[in-house]
Amino acid sequence: MTGTLHGLGLGPGDPELITVKSWRILSMAEVVAWPQAPSGAHRARDVAAPFIPEDVIELPLDIPFGAAREALDAAYEAAAAAVSAHLRAGRDVAFICLGDPLFHGSFIHLMERLQGRFPVQAVPGVAAPMACAAALGRRLAAGRDILKILPGTAPPERLRAEIAAGPAAMAFIKAGRNLAAIRALLEEAGLAQDAFLVEDVTGAEQKLTPLGEAGAEAPYFSTIMVFPPQEAQGS
Amino acid sequence: MTGTLHGLGLGPGDPELITVKSWRILSMAEVVAWPQAPSGAHRARDVAAPFIPEDVIELPLDIPFGAAREALDAAYEAAAAAVSAHLRAGRDVAFICLGDPLFHGSFIHLMERLQGRFPVQAVPGVAAPMACAAALGRRLAAGRDILKILPGTAPPERLRAEIAAGPAAMAFIKAGRNLAAIRALLEEAGLAQDAFLVEDVTGAEQKLTPLGEAGAEAPYFSTIMVFPPQEAQGS
Repeated sequence: MTGTLHGLGLGPGDPELITVKSWRILSMAEVVAWPQAPSGAHRARDVAAPFIPEDVIELPLDIPFGAAREALDAAYEAAAAAVSAHLRAGRDVAFICLGDPLFHGSFIHLMERLQGRFPVQAVPGVAAPMACAAALGRRLAAGRDILKILPGTAPPERLRAEIAAGPAAMAFIKAGRNLAAIRALLEEAGLAQDAFLVEDVTGAEQKLTPLGEAGAEAPYFSTIMVFPPQEAQGS
Repeated sequence: MTGTLHGLGLGPGDPELITVKSWRILSMAEVVAWPQAPSGAHRARDVAAPFIPEDVIELPLDIPFGAAREALDAAYEAAAAAVSAHLRAGRDVAFICLGDPLFHGSFIHLMERLQGRFPVQAVPGVAAPMACAAALGRRLAAGRDILKILPGTAPPERLRAEIAAGPAAMAFIKAGRNLAAIRALLEEAGLAQDAFLVEDVTGAEQKLTPLGEAGAEAPYFSTIMVFPPQEAQGS
Protein backbone atom coordinates (compact mmCIF):
# COMPACT_ATOMS: atom_id res chain seq x y z
CA MET A 1 0.00 0.00 0.00
CA THR A 2 1.41 3.35 -1.04
CA GLY A 3 0.63 6.57 0.78
CA THR A 4 -1.51 9.43 -0.50
CA LEU A 5 -0.17 12.85 -1.42
CA HIS A 6 -2.44 15.62 -0.18
CA GLY A 7 -2.04 19.21 -1.40
CA LEU A 8 -3.44 21.46 1.29
CA GLY A 9 -4.20 25.13 0.62
CA LEU A 10 -3.67 27.17 3.77
CA GLY A 11 -5.44 30.29 2.55
CA PRO A 12 -3.92 33.76 2.23
CA GLY A 13 -1.94 34.07 5.46
CA ASP A 14 -4.16 34.19 8.56
CA PRO A 15 -3.69 30.69 10.05
CA GLU A 16 -7.42 30.62 10.93
CA LEU A 17 -8.32 30.69 7.23
CA ILE A 18 -7.30 27.05 6.85
CA THR A 19 -10.30 24.82 6.15
CA VAL A 20 -11.49 22.22 8.63
CA LYS A 21 -10.71 19.56 6.00
CA SER A 22 -7.10 20.64 5.54
CA TRP A 23 -6.70 20.88 9.30
CA ARG A 24 -8.01 17.33 9.74
CA ILE A 25 -5.74 15.88 7.04
CA LEU A 26 -2.75 17.81 8.38
CA SER A 27 -3.39 16.56 11.91
CA MET A 28 -3.36 12.94 10.69
CA ALA A 29 -0.46 13.18 8.24
CA GLU A 30 2.66 11.13 8.81
CA VAL A 31 4.82 13.51 6.77
CA VAL A 32 4.36 17.27 6.35
CA ALA A 33 6.20 18.81 3.38
CA TRP A 34 6.52 22.46 2.39
CA PRO A 35 8.42 24.61 -0.07
CA GLN A 36 11.44 26.37 1.38
CA ALA A 37 13.05 29.37 -0.33
CA PRO A 38 16.85 29.68 -0.70
CA SER A 39 16.73 32.30 2.07
CA GLY A 40 15.43 29.60 4.41
CA ALA A 41 12.02 31.31 4.55
CA HIS A 42 9.10 28.91 4.75
CA ARG A 43 5.94 30.95 4.99
CA ALA A 44 3.63 27.94 4.52
CA ARG A 45 5.28 26.19 7.49
CA ASP A 46 4.88 29.35 9.59
CA VAL A 47 1.19 29.78 8.72
CA ALA A 48 0.41 26.11 9.39
CA ALA A 49 2.43 25.97 12.60
CA PRO A 50 -0.58 25.85 14.97
CA PHE A 51 -1.90 22.77 13.14
CA ILE A 52 1.23 20.66 12.67
CA PRO A 53 1.35 17.65 15.01
CA GLU A 54 4.43 17.31 17.19
CA ASP A 55 5.45 13.79 16.19
CA VAL A 56 5.23 14.30 12.43
CA ILE A 57 8.12 13.84 9.98
CA GLU A 58 8.93 17.29 8.60
CA LEU A 59 10.12 17.45 4.99
CA PRO A 60 11.32 20.86 3.79
CA LEU A 61 11.65 20.99 -0.01
CA ASP A 62 14.12 23.49 -1.45
CA ILE A 63 12.49 25.53 -4.20
CA PRO A 64 14.48 28.42 -5.73
CA PHE A 65 11.47 30.68 -6.36
CA GLY A 66 12.22 33.22 -9.06
CA ALA A 67 15.03 31.12 -10.60
CA ALA A 68 15.20 30.13 -14.27
CA ARG A 69 12.90 27.40 -15.61
CA GLU A 70 15.62 24.72 -15.67
CA ALA A 71 16.65 25.28 -12.05
CA LEU A 72 13.01 25.22 -10.94
CA ASP A 73 12.35 22.02 -12.89
CA ALA A 74 15.36 20.34 -11.29
CA ALA A 75 14.24 21.44 -7.83
CA TYR A 76 10.73 20.08 -8.36
CA GLU A 77 12.17 16.79 -9.68
CA ALA A 78 14.22 16.46 -6.50
CA ALA A 79 11.21 17.42 -4.37
CA ALA A 80 9.03 14.82 -6.13
CA ALA A 81 11.69 12.17 -5.51
CA ALA A 82 11.86 13.02 -1.81
CA VAL A 83 8.08 12.91 -1.50
CA SER A 84 7.73 9.69 -3.48
CA ALA A 85 10.16 7.88 -1.16
CA HIS A 86 7.69 8.43 1.67
CA LEU A 87 4.68 7.53 -0.48
CA ARG A 88 6.34 4.28 -1.58
CA ALA A 89 6.97 3.46 2.07
CA GLY A 90 3.23 3.78 2.66
CA ARG A 91 3.30 7.12 4.44
CA ASP A 92 0.71 9.81 3.67
CA VAL A 93 2.30 13.15 2.83
CA ALA A 94 0.60 16.51 3.39
CA PHE A 95 2.16 19.21 1.22
CA ILE A 96 1.14 22.63 2.50
CA CYS A 97 1.11 25.84 0.51
CA LEU A 98 -0.40 29.30 0.81
CA GLY A 99 -3.65 30.18 -0.93
CA ASP A 100 -5.15 27.46 -3.09
CA PRO A 101 -2.89 24.52 -4.07
CA LEU A 102 -3.81 24.52 -7.78
CA PHE A 103 -4.08 28.27 -8.28
CA HIS A 104 -0.52 29.57 -8.61
CA GLY A 105 0.44 27.11 -5.87
CA SER A 106 3.72 25.20 -5.82
CA PHE A 107 1.71 21.99 -5.31
CA ILE A 108 0.91 21.99 -9.04
CA HIS A 109 4.44 20.95 -9.92
CA LEU A 110 4.50 18.07 -7.45
CA MET A 111 1.02 16.87 -8.46
CA GLU A 112 1.85 16.80 -12.15
CA ARG A 113 4.99 14.75 -11.48
CA LEU A 114 3.37 12.21 -9.14
CA GLN A 115 -0.19 11.88 -10.51
CA GLY A 116 -0.83 8.42 -11.91
CA ARG A 117 1.98 6.88 -9.84
CA PHE A 118 0.40 7.60 -6.45
CA PRO A 119 -3.00 8.68 -5.14
CA VAL A 120 -2.98 12.47 -5.23
CA GLN A 121 -5.66 14.74 -3.81
CA ALA A 122 -5.87 18.53 -3.59
CA VAL A 123 -7.94 20.31 -0.95
CA PRO A 124 -8.93 23.77 -2.18
CA GLY A 125 -8.18 26.85 -0.13
CA VAL A 126 -9.14 30.52 0.13
CA ALA A 127 -7.48 32.50 -2.66
CA ALA A 128 -5.94 35.94 -2.11
CA PRO A 129 -8.33 38.00 -4.29
CA MET A 130 -11.32 36.90 -2.19
CA ALA A 131 -9.44 37.82 0.97
CA CYS A 132 -8.52 41.22 -0.50
CA ALA A 133 -12.19 42.02 -1.18
CA ALA A 134 -13.07 41.06 2.39
CA ALA A 135 -10.24 43.21 3.79
CA LEU A 136 -11.47 46.18 1.75
CA GLY A 137 -15.14 45.53 2.56
CA ARG A 138 -16.02 45.60 -1.13
CA ARG A 139 -18.03 43.37 -3.43
CA LEU A 140 -15.74 41.38 -5.68
CA ALA A 141 -18.42 40.42 -8.23
CA ALA A 142 -22.18 39.92 -8.36
CA GLY A 143 -24.81 39.15 -10.97
CA ARG A 144 -23.20 39.20 -14.42
CA ASP A 145 -19.90 40.71 -13.25
CA ILE A 146 -16.74 39.18 -14.67
CA LEU A 147 -13.64 38.65 -12.51
CA LYS A 148 -10.17 38.45 -14.01
CA ILE A 149 -7.14 37.38 -12.01
CA LEU A 150 -4.07 38.60 -13.85
CA PRO A 151 -0.44 37.95 -12.89
CA GLY A 152 1.42 41.26 -12.84
CA THR A 153 4.24 39.34 -14.53
CA ALA A 154 2.20 38.70 -17.71
CA PRO A 155 3.17 40.58 -20.89
CA PRO A 156 2.06 44.26 -20.64
CA GLU A 157 0.35 44.16 -24.04
CA ARG A 158 -1.81 41.25 -22.86
CA LEU A 159 -2.66 43.09 -19.64
CA ARG A 160 -3.58 46.20 -21.65
CA ALA A 161 -5.93 44.14 -23.86
CA GLU A 162 -7.58 42.48 -20.85
CA ILE A 163 -8.12 45.87 -19.17
CA ALA A 164 -9.65 47.27 -22.37
CA ALA A 165 -12.01 44.33 -22.96
CA GLY A 166 -14.83 45.86 -20.90
CA PRO A 167 -15.92 46.41 -17.30
CA ALA A 168 -14.67 43.69 -14.96
CA ALA A 169 -13.37 43.29 -11.47
CA MET A 170 -9.65 42.68 -11.71
CA ALA A 171 -7.09 41.34 -9.30
CA PHE A 172 -3.46 41.74 -10.32
CA ILE A 173 -1.55 39.17 -8.30
CA LYS A 174 2.26 39.03 -7.96
CA ALA A 175 2.01 42.76 -8.57
CA GLY A 176 4.85 44.00 -6.37
CA ARG A 177 7.68 44.44 -8.86
CA ASN A 178 5.37 45.58 -11.65
CA LEU A 179 3.35 48.02 -9.58
CA ALA A 180 4.34 51.13 -11.55
CA ALA A 181 3.64 49.47 -14.92
CA ILE A 182 0.23 48.18 -13.82
CA ARG A 183 -0.69 51.56 -12.38
CA ALA A 184 0.25 53.22 -15.67
CA LEU A 185 -2.00 50.80 -17.60
CA LEU A 186 -4.89 51.46 -15.20
CA GLU A 187 -4.42 55.24 -15.41
CA GLU A 188 -4.40 55.00 -19.21
CA ALA A 189 -7.76 53.16 -18.99
CA GLY A 190 -9.24 55.56 -16.42
CA LEU A 191 -9.48 52.78 -13.83
CA ALA A 192 -6.88 53.85 -11.26
CA GLN A 193 -9.23 55.83 -9.03
CA ASP A 194 -11.06 52.84 -7.54
CA ALA A 195 -8.04 50.58 -7.14
CA PHE A 196 -6.10 49.48 -4.09
CA LEU A 197 -2.75 47.95 -3.29
CA VAL A 198 -3.11 45.11 -0.78
CA GLU A 199 0.01 43.82 0.97
CA ASP A 200 0.20 40.70 3.16
CA VAL A 201 -3.56 40.19 3.05
CA THR A 202 -4.95 38.79 6.34
CA GLY A 203 -1.37 38.56 7.65
CA ALA A 204 0.25 40.40 10.54
CA GLU A 205 1.56 43.11 8.19
CA GLN A 206 -1.63 43.61 6.18
CA LYS A 207 -1.69 47.02 4.51
CA LEU A 208 -4.40 48.55 2.32
CA THR A 209 -3.39 51.58 0.23
CA PRO A 210 -5.33 53.48 -2.43
CA LEU A 211 -3.31 52.83 -5.59
CA GLY A 212 -2.72 56.54 -6.15
CA GLU A 213 -0.92 56.74 -2.80
CA ALA A 214 1.24 53.63 -3.26
CA GLY A 215 4.97 53.74 -4.00
CA ALA A 216 6.68 52.37 -7.11
CA GLU A 217 7.26 48.87 -5.73
CA ALA A 218 5.81 46.53 -3.13
CA PRO A 219 6.50 42.98 -1.90
CA TYR A 220 6.26 40.37 -4.72
CA PHE A 221 3.03 38.78 -3.52
CA SER A 222 1.08 42.03 -3.26
CA THR A 223 -2.25 42.34 -5.06
CA ILE A 224 -3.79 45.29 -6.87
CA MET A 225 -7.59 45.20 -6.72
CA VAL A 226 -9.56 47.10 -9.34
CA PHE A 227 -13.31 47.59 -8.98
CA PRO A 228 -15.39 48.34 -12.05
CA PRO A 229 -17.55 51.50 -12.19
CA GLN A 230 -20.59 50.86 -10.00
CA GLU A 231 -23.13 51.49 -12.78
CA ALA A 232 -21.60 48.61 -14.74
CA GLN A 233 -22.25 46.18 -11.90
CA GLY A 234 -25.24 43.91 -11.75
CA SER A 235 -27.20 43.14 -8.63
CA MET B 1 -23.14 48.69 21.95
CA THR B 2 -24.42 47.41 18.63
CA GLY B 3 -23.70 43.90 17.39
CA THR B 4 -21.39 43.00 14.50
CA LEU B 5 -22.59 41.54 11.20
CA HIS B 6 -20.33 38.73 10.00
CA GLY B 7 -20.57 37.38 6.46
CA LEU B 8 -19.26 33.83 6.53
CA GLY B 9 -18.36 31.96 3.33
CA LEU B 10 -19.01 28.26 3.75
CA GLY B 11 -17.10 27.14 0.67
CA PRO B 12 -18.50 25.19 -2.28
CA GLY B 13 -20.64 22.57 -0.57
CA ASP B 14 -18.62 20.06 1.47
CA PRO B 15 -19.25 21.16 5.08
CA GLU B 16 -15.59 20.45 5.91
CA LEU B 17 -14.49 23.21 3.53
CA ILE B 18 -15.57 25.87 6.02
CA THR B 19 -12.60 27.76 7.45
CA VAL B 20 -11.63 27.51 11.09
CA LYS B 21 -12.32 31.25 11.41
CA SER B 22 -15.88 31.00 10.07
CA TRP B 23 -16.46 27.98 12.28
CA ARG B 24 -15.28 29.88 15.35
CA ILE B 25 -17.42 32.93 14.61
CA LEU B 26 -20.43 30.76 13.82
CA SER B 27 -20.03 28.85 17.07
CA MET B 28 -20.09 32.10 19.06
CA ALA B 29 -22.84 33.92 17.14
CA GLU B 30 -26.04 34.88 18.91
CA VAL B 31 -28.02 34.97 15.66
CA VAL B 32 -27.44 32.86 12.53
CA ALA B 33 -29.06 34.21 9.36
CA TRP B 34 -29.24 32.62 5.92
CA PRO B 35 -30.94 33.18 2.57
CA GLN B 36 -33.99 31.02 1.99
CA ALA B 37 -35.44 30.44 -1.50
CA PRO B 38 -39.19 30.64 -2.18
CA SER B 39 -39.18 26.82 -2.39
CA GLY B 40 -38.09 26.73 1.23
CA ALA B 41 -34.65 25.43 0.20
CA HIS B 42 -31.79 26.72 2.32
CA ARG B 43 -28.60 25.16 1.09
CA ALA B 44 -26.35 27.38 3.23
CA ARG B 45 -28.21 26.27 6.38
CA ASP B 46 -27.84 22.63 5.32
CA VAL B 47 -24.09 22.91 4.65
CA ALA B 48 -23.44 24.74 7.92
CA ALA B 49 -25.65 22.41 9.98
CA PRO B 50 -22.76 20.60 11.75
CA PHE B 51 -21.43 23.93 13.02
CA ILE B 52 -24.59 25.76 14.15
CA PRO B 53 -24.91 25.92 17.95
CA GLU B 54 -28.12 24.54 19.41
CA ASP B 55 -29.18 27.57 21.42
CA VAL B 56 -28.73 30.14 18.64
CA ILE B 57 -31.49 32.41 17.28
CA GLU B 58 -32.13 31.26 13.70
CA LEU B 59 -33.12 33.95 11.21
CA PRO B 60 -34.14 32.71 7.75
CA LEU B 61 -34.27 35.55 5.21
CA ASP B 62 -36.59 35.12 2.22
CA ILE B 63 -34.74 35.88 -1.01
CA PRO B 64 -36.56 35.25 -4.31
CA PHE B 65 -33.47 34.20 -6.28
CA GLY B 66 -34.02 34.66 -9.99
CA ALA B 67 -36.78 37.26 -9.51
CA ALA B 68 -36.76 40.71 -11.12
CA ARG B 69 -34.45 43.43 -9.74
CA GLU B 70 -37.24 45.27 -7.89
CA ALA B 71 -38.47 42.16 -6.07
CA LEU B 72 -34.90 41.26 -5.10
CA ASP B 73 -34.20 44.78 -3.86
CA ALA B 74 -37.34 44.71 -1.73
CA ALA B 75 -36.39 41.32 -0.29
CA TYR B 76 -32.89 42.50 0.61
CA GLU B 77 -34.33 45.66 2.20
CA ALA B 78 -36.57 43.49 4.39
CA ALA B 79 -33.67 41.18 5.18
CA ALA B 80 -31.45 44.12 6.16
CA ALA B 81 -34.21 45.44 8.44
CA ALA B 82 -34.57 42.05 10.14
CA VAL B 83 -30.82 41.79 10.65
CA SER B 84 -30.43 45.36 11.87
CA ALA B 85 -33.05 44.82 14.58
CA HIS B 86 -30.73 42.22 16.13
CA LEU B 87 -27.62 44.36 15.61
CA ARG B 88 -29.28 47.35 17.31
CA ALA B 89 -30.15 45.10 20.25
CA GLY B 90 -26.43 44.32 20.58
CA ARG B 91 -26.53 40.81 19.14
CA ASP B 92 -23.83 39.62 16.74
CA VAL B 93 -25.30 38.16 13.56
CA ALA B 94 -23.55 35.52 11.44
CA PHE B 95 -24.89 35.49 7.89
CA ILE B 96 -23.86 32.27 6.15
CA CYS B 97 -23.65 31.73 2.41
CA LEU B 98 -22.06 29.23 0.04
CA GLY B 99 -18.71 29.93 -1.57
CA ASP B 100 -17.15 33.28 -0.77
CA PRO B 101 -19.42 35.98 0.72
CA LEU B 102 -18.29 38.81 -1.60
CA PHE B 103 -17.89 36.76 -4.79
CA HIS B 104 -21.39 36.28 -6.19
CA GLY B 105 -22.59 35.79 -2.60
CA SER B 106 -25.90 37.08 -1.27
CA PHE B 107 -24.01 38.69 1.61
CA ILE B 108 -22.99 41.53 -0.73
CA HIS B 109 -26.50 42.98 -0.71
CA LEU B 110 -26.76 42.94 3.09
CA MET B 111 -23.26 44.37 3.57
CA GLU B 112 -23.88 47.27 1.20
CA ARG B 113 -27.11 48.16 3.02
CA LEU B 114 -25.69 47.96 6.56
CA GLN B 115 -22.05 49.11 6.12
CA GLY B 116 -21.43 52.41 7.92
CA ARG B 117 -24.39 51.88 10.26
CA PHE B 118 -23.00 48.77 12.00
CA PRO B 119 -19.65 46.97 12.18
CA VAL B 120 -19.59 44.61 9.20
CA GLN B 121 -16.91 41.98 8.54
CA ALA B 122 -16.63 39.38 5.78
CA VAL B 123 -14.67 36.17 6.23
CA PRO B 124 -13.51 34.86 2.84
CA GLY B 125 -14.31 31.33 1.75
CA VAL B 126 -13.27 28.75 -0.84
CA ALA B 127 -14.72 29.66 -4.25
CA ALA B 128 -16.19 27.07 -6.61
CA PRO B 129 -13.62 27.36 -9.45
CA MET B 130 -10.79 26.39 -7.09
CA ALA B 131 -12.82 23.40 -5.88
CA CYS B 132 -13.54 22.37 -9.48
CA ALA B 133 -9.83 22.29 -10.33
CA ALA B 134 -9.18 20.14 -7.25
CA ALA B 135 -12.02 17.76 -8.17
CA LEU B 136 -10.60 17.38 -11.67
CA GLY B 137 -6.99 17.09 -10.45
CA ARG B 138 -5.91 19.85 -12.83
CA ARG B 139 -3.84 23.00 -12.46
CA LEU B 140 -6.05 26.07 -12.51
CA ALA B 141 -3.27 28.55 -13.25
CA ALA B 142 0.47 28.89 -12.74
CA GLY B 143 3.22 31.30 -13.67
CA ARG B 144 1.81 33.96 -16.01
CA ASP B 145 -1.50 32.19 -16.61
CA ILE B 146 -4.62 34.34 -16.52
CA LEU B 147 -7.85 33.11 -14.91
CA LYS B 148 -11.25 34.48 -15.91
CA ILE B 149 -14.40 33.71 -13.97
CA LEU B 150 -17.32 34.41 -16.27
CA PRO B 151 -21.01 34.17 -15.36
CA GLY B 152 -22.81 32.08 -17.96
CA THR B 153 -25.58 34.67 -17.73
CA ALA B 154 -23.36 37.47 -19.16
CA PRO B 155 -24.10 38.71 -22.70
CA PRO B 156 -22.91 36.14 -25.29
CA GLU B 157 -21.03 38.77 -27.31
CA ARG B 158 -19.04 39.69 -24.20
CA LEU B 159 -18.29 36.02 -23.49
CA ARG B 160 -17.18 35.54 -27.10
CA ALA B 161 -14.78 38.49 -26.81
CA GLU B 162 -13.34 37.19 -23.53
CA ILE B 163 -12.79 33.74 -25.01
CA ALA B 164 -11.07 35.26 -28.05
CA ALA B 165 -8.75 37.52 -26.03
CA GLY B 166 -6.01 34.88 -25.72
CA PRO B 167 -5.10 31.74 -23.79
CA ALA B 168 -6.55 31.74 -20.28
CA ALA B 169 -8.05 29.34 -17.81
CA MET B 170 -11.78 30.02 -17.71
CA ALA B 171 -14.51 29.08 -15.28
CA PHE B 172 -18.05 29.71 -16.45
CA ILE B 173 -20.13 29.86 -13.30
CA LYS B 174 -23.95 29.79 -13.19
CA ALA B 175 -23.58 27.85 -16.43
CA GLY B 176 -26.51 25.44 -16.13
CA ARG B 177 -29.16 27.14 -18.23
CA ASN B 178 -26.66 28.48 -20.76
CA LEU B 179 -24.71 25.28 -21.18
CA ALA B 180 -25.49 24.82 -24.89
CA ALA B 181 -24.68 28.44 -25.73
CA ILE B 182 -21.36 28.35 -23.85
CA ARG B 183 -20.42 25.05 -25.47
CA ALA B 184 -21.14 26.55 -28.90
CA LEU B 185 -18.86 29.51 -28.13
CA LEU B 186 -16.08 27.18 -26.96
CA GLU B 187 -16.43 24.93 -30.02
CA GLU B 188 -16.25 28.01 -32.25
CA ALA B 189 -12.97 28.93 -30.52
CA GLY B 190 -11.57 25.37 -30.62
CA LEU B 191 -11.52 25.16 -26.83
CA ALA B 192 -14.24 22.57 -26.16
CA GLN B 193 -11.98 19.52 -26.11
CA ASP B 194 -10.31 20.25 -22.75
CA ALA B 195 -13.42 21.47 -20.95
CA PHE B 196 -15.55 19.89 -18.23
CA LEU B 197 -18.98 20.35 -16.74
CA VAL B 198 -18.84 20.22 -12.95
CA GLU B 199 -22.08 19.79 -11.03
CA ASP B 200 -22.48 20.14 -7.24
CA VAL B 201 -18.73 20.45 -6.70
CA THR B 202 -17.58 18.79 -3.43
CA GLY B 203 -21.24 18.03 -2.62
CA ALA B 204 -22.96 14.67 -2.28
CA GLU B 205 -24.06 14.77 -5.94
CA GLN B 206 -20.75 15.90 -7.43
CA LYS B 207 -20.49 15.00 -11.10
CA LEU B 208 -17.62 15.61 -13.54
CA THR B 209 -18.43 15.30 -17.24
CA PRO B 210 -16.30 16.07 -20.30
CA LEU B 211 -18.16 18.96 -21.93
CA GLY B 212 -18.63 17.03 -25.17
CA GLU B 213 -20.60 14.36 -23.28
CA ALA B 214 -22.82 16.77 -21.32
CA GLY B 215 -26.49 17.36 -22.09
CA ALA B 216 -28.05 20.68 -23.13
CA GLU B 217 -28.80 21.88 -19.59
CA ALA B 218 -27.57 21.35 -16.06
CA PRO B 219 -28.42 22.71 -12.58
CA TYR B 220 -28.10 26.52 -12.38
CA PHE B 221 -24.99 26.56 -10.20
CA SER B 222 -22.96 24.21 -12.41
CA THR B 223 -19.54 25.32 -13.62
CA ILE B 224 -17.81 24.77 -16.94
CA MET B 225 -14.03 24.61 -16.57
CA VAL B 226 -11.87 25.35 -19.59
CA PHE B 227 -8.14 24.66 -19.50
CA PRO B 228 -5.87 26.49 -21.93
CA PRO B 229 -3.63 24.55 -24.32
CA GLN B 230 -0.73 23.20 -22.25
CA GLU B 231 1.98 24.87 -24.37
CA ALA B 232 0.48 28.24 -23.47
CA GLN B 233 0.90 27.59 -19.78
CA GLY B 234 3.79 28.85 -17.76
CA SER B 235 5.55 26.95 -15.04
